[in-house]
Amino acid sequence: MTLPPHATLTIGVLREQAADEQRVGLTPDSAARLVAAGHAVVVESGAGARAWFRDDEYESAGAAVGPRATVLDAGDLVVCLHPSAVLHALSPRHIVLGLLQPLLDPQLMARMAEAGVTALSFDTLPRTVSRAQSMDALTSQASVAGYKAALVAADAYGGFFPMLTTAAGTTKPATVLVLGAGVAGLQAIATARRLGAVVTAFDVRDSAQSDIRSLGAQVLDVGVTVQSEGGYARQLTAEEQAELTDRVADSVGRFDVVITTAQVPGRPPPLLVPERALQLMHPGSVVVDGAAGDFGGNVEGSKAGHTVVTPSGVTVIGAGALASQVPRAASTAYARNVAALVAYFTRSGSFAVDLDDEVQAGLVITHGGRVVHPAVRALLEGTS
Amino acid sequence: MTLPPHATLTIGVLREQAADEQRVGLTPDSAARLVAAGHAVVVESGAGARAWFRDDEYESAGAAVGPRATVLDAGDLVVCLHPSAVLHALSPRHIVLGLLQPLLDPQLMARMAEAGVTALSFDTLPRTVSRAQSMDALTSQASVAGYKAALVAADAYGGFFPMLTTAAGTTKPATVLVLGAGVAGLQAIATARRLGAVVTAFDVRDSAQSDIRSLGAQVLDVGVTVQSEGGYARQLTAEEQAELTDRVADSVGRFDVVITTAQVPGRPPPLLVPERALQLMHPGSVVVDGAAGDFGGNVEGSKAGHTVVTPSGVTVIGAGALASQVPRAASTAYARNVAALVAYFTRSGSFAVDLDDEVQAGLVITHGGRVVHPAVRALLEGTS
Repeated sequence: MTLPPHATLTIGVLREQAADEQRVGLTPDSAARLVAAGHAVVVESGAGARAWFRDDEYESAGAAVGPRATVLDAGDLVVCLHPSAVLHALSPRHIVLGLLQPLLDPQLMARMAEAGVTALSFDTLPRTVSRAQSMDALTSQASVAGYKAALVAADAYGGFFPMLTTAAGTTKPATVLVLGAGVAGLQAIATARRLGAVVTAFDVRDSAQSDIRSLGAQVLDVGVTVQSEGGYARQLTAEEQAELTDRVADSVGRFDVVITTAQVPGRPPPLLVPERALQLMHPGSVVVDGAAGDFGGNVEGSKAGHTVVTPSGVTVIGAGALASQVPRAASTAYARNVAALVAYFTRSGSFAVDLDDEVQAGLVITHGGRVVHPAVRALLEGTS
Repeated sequence: MTLPPHATLTIGVLREQAADEQRVGLTPDSAARLVAAGHAVVVESGAGARAWFRDDEYESAGAAVGPRATVLDAGDLVVCLHPSAVLHALSPRHIVLGLLQPLLDPQLMARMAEAGVTALSFDTLPRTVSRAQSMDALTSQASVAGYKAALVAADAYGGFFPMLTTAAGTTKPATVLVLGAGVAGLQAIATARRLGAVVTAFDVRDSAQSDIRSLGAQVLDVGVTVQSEGGYARQLTAEEQAELTDRVADSVGRFDVVITTAQVPGRPPPLLVPERALQLMHPGSVVVDGAAGDFGGNVEGSKAGHTVVTPSGVTVIGAGALASQVPRAASTAYARNVAALVAYFTRSGSFAVDLDDEVQAGLVITHGGRVVHPAVRALLEGTS
């Protein structure tokens, strides 16, 4: 492999190691864009295979393809989704970019700081700042996840989503309840509506009500709403959460399909569908827990990557890695976020960290041997 | 269990035996309709379980629920999907109704005749007679299968079906080719279009072109069309078939997703996508063979119930039992066809076979100890 002699930055792309991860951090299209901007790109052989991007497509885009060691050796900025299994190979000259979940695993960030690595994480991007939106990988991946959640639900449900009229009669459309109307929830609403379902949705943020209605869905009124903070709901008080769960539980039984997508940044997802609510649902109904993961889920008893049928005949799908299951679309969107971020950090002609910039201050977790992100520092100081 | 004393007909409903069959021949809704018409209904315990209909729902509808032996003992008209494993228990007082595939398995029909059973099969209904359409189970099941074929394709495809615009850019919609635009193909077109894909379709019957266009899809012109006979294409000559396969193969490589649904009644499905065509498709593209089954398929190398990825990265899904995978919708539609058929055969107040009636003559395969259906007789005489 040969690299351009005067590249501004060499961007290394790693093959993901997690078994359920099909995405890749950069696509041939976005690699071509970075090469055109004067950067070099070096891709680990097979990195795009699970998203159906071949090594020769990266080469045609002007990237070099090589083994993992070469990517870590040549790469200044190393792109990944998950930080698994790269830390030991990184040095102070490396910048790591990914979905590092710094608020859920601050200890990993502390180790990155110790290693002298500059760690950038999309998770902590200030999402409401407009110049940051082209870098918003949480949004782009949530959008894919919401689309997939609706497809998974439609595929698992034993009836039609649309109303269909035939010579033998008319079928009623499926009734779908979407809990959590952030980016993922809204895309789930839109997709279920495309398929012809009658959709109702709920979000605890007052600002989400108009979004729900604008997609042609009804709002489920459970009497609890709070103001939105930075695009997220604040964590509810125990009393508010209990009232909310009660009211949602009372409503769930009316629906054929329930899709949950509620997330609170840096915390386990809130429980929205307790066991009691599942028992109120009719046999054959389907629940897709789009928040299922290592840190819990929105549905009692759901397990990420597993489908269970309750004794009363409700299919509960713990669907945690949804974006990864649409790997081509998800990787394409993620790679665009990566390319936008590289452009943002190299505006001056070379890669420069400026923590006085609100967007950079959100993205940069570790730099100069220290954890610099205030929220991550607070967690580390609180737990040490 | 107790049965009404003066029921016109006792309709028995069997639990299906095939491992991949989730449907049931009658739903609680349609059972209630038959009971209201003065018939008795007796359902094998658990018959509806895989379509999420519980025994107590049948009982609430006025049906009796009991073991298999009781259903065969009490039932005059025995309803099933597949005739598997009932023949030995049937006697001359039994009428069997199902999708018996008499043209593919005429020997089974000969054995039914020997047993003195009256066998009615939906497969041979004259579909173009308007008073027959409420009994058209092939159509109702094909409609479900087409819907599911599009969902299966969307779920397997690594990209979005719709065009989506986000802060990081716009994604192109998926391009979908539907081969065979009968009932299943048209529903696949409609569903893929609902999901936002750009759809092109082909059918060898000239009459299908306007159906394709009316759903907003483009027609793939391959230069071979024939007139439609009874809703089906006639079998092509070897020369026509070769030309057709060649032209389709040349076009397939342009599409992200190919869905095939081409059937010829009583014959193996035609080969539409040869190996050569699969090699022209790009990595990550998806082929759903909706005609895959015991008698072949539309796609070379596809196997019913199996998904294979070709060396060039094309996912080929042998999706033979599609209607059964949407068991609630499929059973609901099938049960309506059953109820309409019962009403048709009992117009005079009791069950009566009239082979001078065009619709009955199509449905009745065996009666009075003989195979009476001309097409099935012809097959038996040709092979004996």
